[in-house]
Amino acid sequence: MADSPDRSDSDPDEEIMRATYRALREHGYADLTVKRIADEYGKSTAAIHYHYDTKDNLLAAFLDYVLGRFKDSVHEVETTDPEQRLELLLDQLLVELEDHRDLLIAMLEMRSQAPYKETFSERFQQNDEYVRYLLETVIAQGIEAGAFAEVDPDHVARALMTIVDGARTREVVLEGDALATARQTADEYVTAVLLEDEP
Amino acid sequence: MADSPDRSDSDPDEEIMRATYRALREHGYADLTVKRIADEYGKSTAAIHYHYDTKDNLLAAFLDYVLGRFKDSVHEVETTDPEQRLELLLDQLLVELEDHRDLLIAMLEMRSQAPYKETFSERFQQNDEYVRYLLETVIAQGIEAGAFAEVDPDHVARALMTIVDGARTREVVLEGDALATARQTADEYVTAVLLEDEP
Repeated sequence: MADSPDRSDSDPDEEIMRATYRALREHGYADLTVKRIADEYGKSTAAIHYHYDTKDNLLAAFLDYVLGRFKDSVHEVETTDPEQRLELLLDQLLVELEDHRDLLIAMLEMRSQAPYKETFSERFQQNDEYVRYLLETVIAQGIEAGAFAEVDPDHVARALMTIVDGARTREVVLEGDALATARQTADEYVTAVLLEDEP
Repeated sequence: MADSPDRSDSDPDEEIMRATYRALREHGYADLTVKRIADEYGKSTAAIHYHYDTKDNLLAAFLDYVLGRFKDSVHEVETTDPEQRLELLLDQLLVELEDHRDLLIAMLEMRSQAPYKETFSERFQQNDEYVRYLLETVIAQGIEAGAFAEVDPDHVARALMTIVDGARTREVVLEGDALATARQTADEYVTAVLLEDEP
């Protein structure tokens, strides 16, 4: 996710989302206030509340926004070769996050609140379903094309998301190269499970 | 981790740790107060503060306690056959948690605070190093015995912990069978990477 994409600044929702992103990166979720988002937005808290009545609603919209940005970036993956497409998806899920540790920190804080906040829980569930749908689709296409072994696409998508979510948690909680380790692990898993009959 | 192990009730530290565990299960990390721990302990907050000067110090001690309990349970794994021992370790890291979703929720909340709290960060780092050491040791023994392929034990241990941490996060954030999916994923990974030369 780029800091300052060249988009029209006339859309208040887009501007508020970008202000929320900057405030989350700077303060983290626990110390996030509408005041701090308003400061990043350059307007009053009333200007924020005009669009979003509570902080939780704003953050729910932010999670939708993050998913939307992710969807946009996925649409840029133009290759239709299943093996290559799967690699590029895994790159986007893991490698692209290397410069966004502060966003990963804020997202993990929000994820940890999912059991208490239905609005968060729904979004994380939807995001996960969407990404698994992308993975399942490319896996099913690879099986169809004879490029992948005849696996259960649902299980393999869940397995890959387990590796992705493990990396995202470890990148926040522990020192070290969690994303690179996970990228290698995902490759080993794909090679073993999907390409097992390949030469 | 059992709720009420049959231990001596005369050790105040042990009693406070068990009270902390119950308070965390009931209220979660964000709503945890020393008062609520004291209520579980059946004594005043002063009685807690006599042993732990701050809530964070108490929680740091709690993380040490959880690791201690985990170490105790690992010592019960008596088999020395590398393949079997690795399976049992993975069971303890994944399957044993199925009845402890409320503990997983509280732990994920604490993990998400690691970037802000050095005392938490240090403990999670130590826990991870300890578990990886156990995994590395059994992998190295398996290689030595000719039961496992000649892999890098450090990488394989990190890969397995990525799967474990992914499952723990997904179990909290998402619906579904995250621990069972991860257990199967870990098995597939072990079979592919460690047992690749086996018949």
